[in-house]
Amino acid sequence: MLKSYFTTRTKLLDEALKIYLNYGKEQPEKLYQAINYSIFSGGKRLRPVLFFATYEMIKLTDDPESIKHLLPVAAALEMVHTASLIHDDLPALDNSKERRGQDSCHVKFDAATAILAGDALLTKAFEMLTLYENSEVAVHLIQILCNAVSTRGMIGGQSVDVLSSDKQVLPISVLKFVHSKKTGALLEAAVKMACTCANADFTLMQTLSNYAMNLGLSYQIIDDILDDVGDFETLGKDPFEDVRNHKTTYPTIMGLDKARKMADKLLDDSYKMVKNMKNNENLVEFVNMIKDRLP
Amino acid sequence: MLKSYFTTRTKLLDEALKIYLNYGKEQPEKLYQAINYSIFSGGKRLRPVLFFATYEMIKLTDDPESIKHLLPVAAALEMVHTASLIHDDLPALDNSKERRGQDSCHVKFDAATAILAGDALLTKAFEMLTLYENSEVAVHLIQILCNAVSTRGMIGGQSVDVLSSDKQVLPISVLKFVHSKKTGALLEAAVKMACTCANADFTLMQTLSNYAMNLGLSYQIIDDILDDVGDFETLGKDPFEDVRNHKTTYPTIMGLDKARKMADKLLDDSYKMVKNMKNNENLVEFVNMIKDRLP
Repeated sequence: MLKSYFTTRTKLLDEALKIYLNYGKEQPEKLYQAINYSIFSGGKRLRPVLFFATYEMIKLTDDPESIKHLLPVAAALEMVHTASLIHDDLPALDNSKERRGQDSCHVKFDAATAILAGDALLTKAFEMLTLYENSEVAVHLIQILCNAVSTRGMIGGQSVDVLSSDKQVLPISVLKFVHSKKTGALLEAAVKMACTCANADFTLMQTLSNYAMNLGLSYQIIDDILDDVGDFETLGKDPFEDVRNHKTTYPTIMGLDKARKMADKLLDDSYKMVKNMKNNENLVEFVNMIKDRLP
Repeated sequence: MLKSYFTTRTKLLDEALKIYLNYGKEQPEKLYQAINYSIFSGGKRLRPVLFFATYEMIKLTDDPESIKHLLPVAAALEMVHTASLIHDDLPALDNSKERRGQDSCHVKFDAATAILAGDALLTKAFEMLTLYENSEVAVHLIQILCNAVSTRGMIGGQSVDVLSSDKQVLPISVLKFVHSKKTGALLEAAVKMACTCANADFTLMQTLSNYAMNLGLSYQIIDDILDDVGDFETLGKDPFEDVRNHKTTYPTIMGLDKARKMADKLLDDSYKMVKNMKNNENLVEFVNMIKDRLP
C-alpha cells in the first residue's frame, strides 16, 4: 500500500517542483542547473510524503485532488531538506563527495555554486509558503519551518555535530541532541504543517509531533547501524564512514545489539501513538518502512 | 540632520537585535557567538535606516515611537544583509579575510560555522517577519524579501559575479546586472517594505523603488572608484582588491572620469525622484551621504 501511495504522491510533487524551479535559460544558468541537479537526484521525498499522509489521515481522505492545494507546502519541505544536504556535504562541513550514488553538488559544480544553491533553495522554500491561500495559515507554516531550520533545529544540530567531530567519544545526550535536531526536526515540522493545514487540535498535533520525532531518531540510529555493519545497499552510500571519521555513533556507545533494541523501541512507540487513529494505514506503514531498514 | 537620525534609529535597532539574538548560554555556543560577532561588527545599518526613513516620510512623522512596531522588519533586513556578507566572504566565494577592519566570520571562527551562521541569520530574518501584527502584510513582506534575496536578486547577482571573475573584461550590461542585484535589490526591498507597512499606493512604491535602485547602483560604482583610487578610509577595507583580482569595474571599462559622472547622474536622478515629496529630508540626505563618498 505505502509503495503505491509514495509513487502517486511523489509524481504529483515532482511535476510541481519542475514548474516551481523552471528557470528556462535565465542567468545564472549554472546556479539553476545546480539547484535542479540537487532537487532531482533521486531523493525519497520522505518529508513531503509524510506531510501528505498526515494531512490525508486527519481529513479522512485518500483522494489526490484533495492535496493539490498543498503542493507548494510539500515543495517547501523538500527544498529545505535539499538545501541542508547541499550545505552539509560541503568540504568545510561533512566533506561528502557523493550523495545518492552521484557526485554531490559542490563536486559536480563548485563550492561557490553549492553554497549559493543552498541559500537559494532555503529562500525559495519560504517563498513557496507565502503562496498558501490563507495568510494566517501561511504565517504559521513559515513559523514552523523557521523553527525546524533554525539554530534550535537543523542548523543547531549540524553545528554541534561538526564542532564535536574532533572529540573521541560524545555523551549519549549530545548524540541524541544532534540526531533529533538534524533529522527529527524537519520530520516533526512536516507533520506539524500537515496538522496546521488540516486545522487539527493541539493534542493531536502533539501526539503526531512525537510520532515524527521518534521516526527521525530511529532513522538516524539505523543509519549508524547500517554504517557499522557495512550495508551499502540500504544505506545508499559508502559504509564505514563514521568509523573512518572516528565519529561517535549509537553502536560505538552502546554496542550493536542495544542500538538495535533502542531503534525498535522508538518505532514501537511511534506505532502505539497512531495505532488507534482512523485512516492511519500510511502512518503505520511509515513505521514499518523504517523498521525494514534494520539489518 | 541625517547623522542624528541615523544615531537614534540605529540605537533602537541595536537594542532590538540584542533581544532577538540573545541566546544566553545555549548550545551551540560557537554558532551563537559567530552570529552575534557578525551582526555587531560596526555595520552602518543602511538598509534598516532607509526603511525607517521611507516609512516616516510617507507617514509624515519623525516620532521614534511610531516605528517601534517595525523593529522586527528592520532587523530582518539587517540579518539578511549580514548573512549575505558572511557567505560572500567565504574562501569559496570572494575569499575576503577582513570585513570592516576586523576578521571576517570564517577567519574569526571557521568556514563551517560561517556557513551555518549565514543560514541561521537568513532563516531568522523570515521568522522576524512572521511577527508582524497583520498576517496579510507579513506575507507581502516575506514575498518582497524572498524576491530580493533569491536567484533573481542578491544570490543571482553574487553567482554571476563569482562565475565571471575569471573572465578578463565583462560587458557593462553584466556589470550592471551584478551591481544592481548585489546591492540594489536589498535597498529596493527596504523601501518596498516601508511602502507596504505604510500602505503606500503603487505609483509611490514604483518611484521609491527606482530611487533605491539608483542609490544601490551608484554606491557600487563609487566603491569601484574608491578601490581604483586607493581610498582606504572611505572604502573601509583594503583598496586595489579589484585590480589585484583582475575584476572588471566601472573605472576599468569607462575610465575614472566617466564612472564618476555616471554615479553623479544616478544620484541626481534619485534626488529628482523625491525632491517634491513632503517630509523628504532624510531621503534627500541619503543621496548626499552617498555623493559625499565620491573622491
